[in-house]
Amino acid sequence: MSKGLLIVLSGPSGVGKGTVCTALRSRVPELVYSVSATTRSPRLGEVNGVNYFFKSREQFMDMIENDQLLEYAEYVGNYYGTPRDFVEETLATGRDIILEIEVQGALKVKEKFPDGIFVFLMPPSLDELKDRIQGRGTESQATIDHRMSVAVDEINLLQHYDYAVVNDEINLACERIQSIIIAEHCKVRK
Amino acid sequence: MSKGLLIVLSGPSGVGKGTVCTALRSRVPELVYSVSATTRSPRLGEVNGVNYFFKSREQFMDMIENDQLLEYAEYVGNYYGTPRDFVEETLATGRDIILEIEVQGALKVKEKFPDGIFVFLMPPSLDELKDRIQGRGTESQATIDHRMSVAVDEINLLQHYDYAVVNDEINLACERIQSIIIAEHCKVRK
Repeated sequence: MSKGLLIVLSGPSGVGKGTVCTALRSRVPELVYSVSATTRSPRLGEVNGVNYFFKSREQFMDMIENDQLLEYAEYVGNYYGTPRDFVEETLATGRDIILEIEVQGALKVKEKFPDGIFVFLMPPSLDELKDRIQGRGTESQATIDHRMSVAVDEINLLQHYDYAVVNDEINLACERIQSIIIAEHCKVRK
Repeated sequence: MSKGLLIVLSGPSGVGKGTVCTALRSRVPELVYSVSATTRSPRLGEVNGVNYFFKSREQFMDMIENDQLLEYAEYVGNYYGTPRDFVEETLATGRDIILEIEVQGALKVKEKFPDGIFVFLMPPSLDELKDRIQGRGTESQATIDHRMSVAVDEINLLQHYDYAVVNDEINLACERIQSIIIAEHCKVRK
């Protein structure tokens, strides 16, 4: 039995990572989804081990200390991270696992897991990305400009990734990622 | 426009390279087929530039001398080779080109064209390969043993290839090769 692959799906904020990841999971049900650990409280309907691994702040600090997270970050007062055990146990059973994560987090995962397949989801164009960022709501021009400049900085990190997949259409993006997974399984490891 | 890819499809004798290549070309009509040059005479119905580029011995020797062949070999008194110009002109227009070739020839192509995508078609098992080699006709046991030992030597050259595709079923093998082509087009070139 060959080992599974860790597929890291990343890309700038607003590019549609979440949507593509959800569509991909429904097309490829055998693809395991990397469940994050978090210190935030469960919301109504969220299930421990499915949506998140819910942890106390103390438990989370222990995980950091014992190098049990491939990456972590603080966001609005709560911690979020990728448990290493869950990823490694899945791979050991020969199953592939997908991790959807923002660009900085992906680069941290790469340090600890250089054998991962790093896929960067690209907007069809910067204009398109701007439309998507603007279309989200009623943000100020300053906020939109800031988010665009962050996105451009993130796109400049593309060189650290293995693959660039244009998200022009969800089905096409999914097909490209499925092709990448099939091709990686055919790769001759040297 | 991005440059096209040279896909080199190889594998041991008897593995089904020709069948898979034909099936792939009918599934992917935009994939250009690398036409070989040869000094042998055209057979009934063969068209110059479609089945082969038919050359005189003198023309062929000139091509060798002027480094116009990515590889060549003599077989039963005739020369066969892969014209470099046809490959390079196709790639320059952004189209992908597939070259179906035996293992030694593929390794020669790799020396001159390291950017090619080298795909090794594998038999599902050695027993299966033996069945296919035996199934071809009425060859002697000595011939079959010799061909099997050549095939095993060829399989040991797998390490020089980028991808190994198992030819368990033609449609599956074609899908894997199509996935490899899609994935390679998504690759971030560093």
